[in-house]
Amino acid sequence: MKIAVFGTGSVGQTIASKLVSLGYDVMIGTRDVKEAKSRTAADMYGNPGFGKWLESNSKVKLGTFNEAGSFGDLFINATSGGSSVKVFKSVKSDDMKNKILIDIANPLDFSKGMPPSLIPSLSNTHSLGEEIQKEFPGTKVVKTLNTMWCGLMVNPGMIGGGDHVNYLCGNDSDAKEKVKEILRKFGWKDENLLDLGDITNSRGSESVLPIWLRVWGATGTGAFNFKIVK
Amino acid sequence: MKIAVFGTGSVGQTIASKLVSLGYDVMIGTRDVKEAKSRTAADMYGNPGFGKWLESNSKVKLGTFNEAGSFGDLFINATSGGSSVKVFKSVKSDDMKNKILIDIANPLDFSKGMPPSLIPSLSNTHSLGEEIQKEFPGTKVVKTLNTMWCGLMVNPGMIGGGDHVNYLCGNDSDAKEKVKEILRKFGWKDENLLDLGDITNSRGSESVLPIWLRVWGATGTGAFNFKIVK
Repeated sequence: MKIAVFGTGSVGQTIASKLVSLGYDVMIGTRDVKEAKSRTAADMYGNPGFGKWLESNSKVKLGTFNEAGSFGDLFINATSGGSSVKVFKSVKSDDMKNKILIDIANPLDFSKGMPPSLIPSLSNTHSLGEEIQKEFPGTKVVKTLNTMWCGLMVNPGMIGGGDHVNYLCGNDSDAKEKVKEILRKFGWKDENLLDLGDITNSRGSESVLPIWLRVWGATGTGAFNFKIVK
Repeated sequence: MKIAVFGTGSVGQTIASKLVSLGYDVMIGTRDVKEAKSRTAADMYGNPGFGKWLESNSKVKLGTFNEAGSFGDLFINATSGGSSVKVFKSVKSDDMKNKILIDIANPLDFSKGMPPSLIPSLSNTHSLGEEIQKEFPGTKVVKTLNTMWCGLMVNPGMIGGGDHVNYLCGNDSDAKEKVKEILRKFGWKDENLLDLGDITNSRGSESVLPIWLRVWGATGTGAFNFKIVK
C-alpha cells in the first residue's frame, strides 16, 4: 500500500520510518521540497534537521503536498493542527475522495505562552478531527495516536508492556478497521485500542493534550501514556 | 477538624460520608436548607434524594452556604462548576480568608447537548480552579479529585489496587501538603498523587473531563480512572 505522510516534523519522520520498515511505500508531503531538504540543523529537541534525516531514510520519497496526495492510497496527517486544513486544500480534490486520512495532529496554540493551549475555534465544542471531516466530506477521517509522544505511537511496547490506551474515532467503521490493521503492525494490542465512536469524539482525544503537556512538565518525561484502570 | 462541604449532590454526599467515618466534624452547605431536606425522590442515577440521604447520615450537619462558611476550618467545593463562585460569594468574606478550599468541581456546560462541554469562559486558557483563586485571593485553593467518579475519590483501592492517578495543583505548598494528609486517609498512596504545580494547572486537570466522559460512554462504566504508565 502507498502511504502519504503529510508533515516533515518528528511525528512525520517517526511514522514514515516505521511504515518503510514494515514494507509500505511511503512519500512525505511538504510545502516546499527544496526548502525541506535544506533543513539540516537539529531542532530544539536535538532531532536532526529534516534534510539530514531524509539522507539516512533514503527509501522515503519526498514530494509536494499535491504530489503526496496523488501518490497515497492512505493519508497520514502529521502537520501542525493550525495548518492541516490548508495543507489538504492544496491536494487535488479528486485525490481526497474515498481516502482514509489518519489524523494524528493536535490543534495546539502556541500564541498564548507555554504550555500551549488549544486553538479556540477547534476546541471544546469542536475539534480538528471534525473540521477536517467537515471540509473534506468524501474523505474517511480516523483520529488516533494524537494523545502520546511519537516514539510510543510506533513502539507501544517501550513502556508497561504496551498496556496503555490508544483512542480511535471516526464515522466510517471499515476505515477504523483498516487503521487498526496498521496499528497492530505498530505493536498495538486490540485490548488497548478504544473506539470512542464517531469523529465528534476528537473533542475528547484532543482534550488530552492540556493534561498530557502538564504531566510531561511535572514528570520530566514524554515517554509516558495513560492506561485505563477498571 | 471542622470541614464544610459545599453542595448536596452525589459528590458532596460521598465526601461528607467518608469524612464523618474518618472522625471529622462535617457540615454540608446548601442554598436553601428546607428545600434540600424536602428532596426525597431518587435522582436519574438511582441515588436517594438528599433528604433521604441526610436521614441515614445523621452525623452530618446541614446549613446555609453562609453557615457552612462560618463552621468550616477547611472547605470542599462539590457544587456545580457554573455556580461555584456565586456560592462562595454568599459566604462572609472574613470566613473565606486563609482557609484551604479543596476544589473538586468541574465547569461543565450542559447547554450544548451530551456529553457536556466545558463552560467556554472557564476552559482552555482559563479554568474554574483559577477563577475561584482569582475571586478569593485570601483563600488557598487546591484542585484535586475532580478527574474521577466520586466513588473512587474516597476509595481508590476499589480498582487496580489503588494504582491510578490523582492530580493536585495550587499555589500554596503547605495547603497541598495538608490536602495530601486527607487524601491519604481516603486511601491514596503518595506515588499516585501527582502535584502539577500552581493553580493554572487546573486547565489540565479540568480538561480531563471531555475524554473521561467519552471513555465512560464507550466502556459503560464510570468506575475507572487513568494510570500514568512510564
